[in-house]
Amino acid sequence: MVSKNELKLITSLHQKKYRNKHELFIAEGIKGVLELLESKLLPYALYVTQEVDGLPIGNTVKIGAGEMKKLSCLKTPTEILGVFHMPEQKSLKTEGIILALNNVRDPGNLGTIIRLCDWFGISQLVCSVNTVDCYNPKVVQATMGSLARVQINYLELEDFLISTDKPIYGAIMDGENVYKSKLPKEAILVMGNESNGIGTSILHKVSNRLSIPRFGSQQTESLNVATATAILLSEFRRG
Amino acid sequence: MVSKNELKLITSLHQKKYRNKHELFIAEGIKGVLELLESKLLPYALYVTQEVDGLPIGNTVKIGAGEMKKLSCLKTPTEILGVFHMPEQKSLKTEGIILALNNVRDPGNLGTIIRLCDWFGISQLVCSVNTVDCYNPKVVQATMGSLARVQINYLELEDFLISTDKPIYGAIMDGENVYKSKLPKEAILVMGNESNGIGTSILHKVSNRLSIPRFGSQQTESLNVATATAILLSEFRRG
Repeated sequence: MVSKNELKLITSLHQKKYRNKHELFIAEGIKGVLELLESKLLPYALYVTQEVDGLPIGNTVKIGAGEMKKLSCLKTPTEILGVFHMPEQKSLKTEGIILALNNVRDPGNLGTIIRLCDWFGISQLVCSVNTVDCYNPKVVQATMGSLARVQINYLELEDFLISTDKPIYGAIMDGENVYKSKLPKEAILVMGNESNGIGTSILHKVSNRLSIPRFGSQQTESLNVATATAILLSEFRRG
Repeated sequence: MVSKNELKLITSLHQKKYRNKHELFIAEGIKGVLELLESKLLPYALYVTQEVDGLPIGNTVKIGAGEMKKLSCLKTPTEILGVFHMPEQKSLKTEGIILALNNVRDPGNLGTIIRLCDWFGISQLVCSVNTVDCYNPKVVQATMGSLARVQINYLELEDFLISTDKPIYGAIMDGENVYKSKLPKEAILVMGNESNGIGTSILHKVSNRLSIPRFGSQQTESLNVATATAILLSEFRRG
């Protein structure tokens, strides 16, 4: 059973405003929920419509499919919905490669980029304040648990770039061929918005412009921001 | 105005069976439709709810928002819906790098992969027959017009791999480090399913197993198939 108060609280978490107020977020799907639990993220509540192996004993509430439909952010809910406490916000660590996003709006792209950070051992992700919320349910679902292993810092990107002494790389259509660039071990890599790329004021702070050469027809307009991030992080790491 | 027959035909194209029967498919959104038109793909019909610049004169039908909602595959329809003839199926060209997909199921992933082929000048994409249909409306939307510039061949993947004399590379979790591999100019690269990777019978045909090293924690389970494809195609092309 879900009480009225619980229902009100959990459906409020569909919105960023209330996620931030309560410092809670929703994860759905067995794989994602189990990965968040393994990552030592603290569950606030776990709801299941059927038995699920591997859950902490005595911590889950069995509910009906109709109730799950009310709680869920999905059109087709899964058998599990977890509510988690947001990890405590730590201060930004400035070693190594830092990825910075300037106004990335698509939840699927942000989720994929968080997974990429996790894969490539990028512990710090900086997001401009207008980047999509990392606790948006669609982002959480796309990260598959990587959310707990990458520290995500929302801040005024321009101020951050002014304050750093690292070289600032940016992905630009007419930048230097990344395959011919010698990339450092310490740097910030800025990726821009899906339609408009890196904004003008941020672009002024970029010291090294990188591009991924196009091998196909001139008509191909651009790579998706998540696939471009994949290729550039791979280039920074491959040595 | 949309006639009853048109309505019936176009809504039938939401399903693969009827797309194949009529050899027609739907594209929505200005950017995608204009790119398909520029790529010389033949429009069967174009429907708009408002004036759109850049369309062929005398070829568009103005309809109401309610009618568009009936035709559209989207929850929130755009101002334009195009119905296009599928390009004529040509025979597979076997020069260069050929990308082969084994049971990729997510339309967004296939769309992203088609855009990657276009970017990296991979003219031939081979899809196993159980790979998601490339004329699925969600795929069409994710390709942003690249669909017209990449030849997509659905076939029995195992038979194709038996018939080729090229080296067959495959992305496998415990394969050889791709950054240390010398990659040829002529090859087939096989990418597997989102959850299960490359199937057993196909894996037996793979002569060179490649993997992308993980730099982060051991817990990160895998890269998304589209981002892994991005990194591997980049490696084949960077030289």
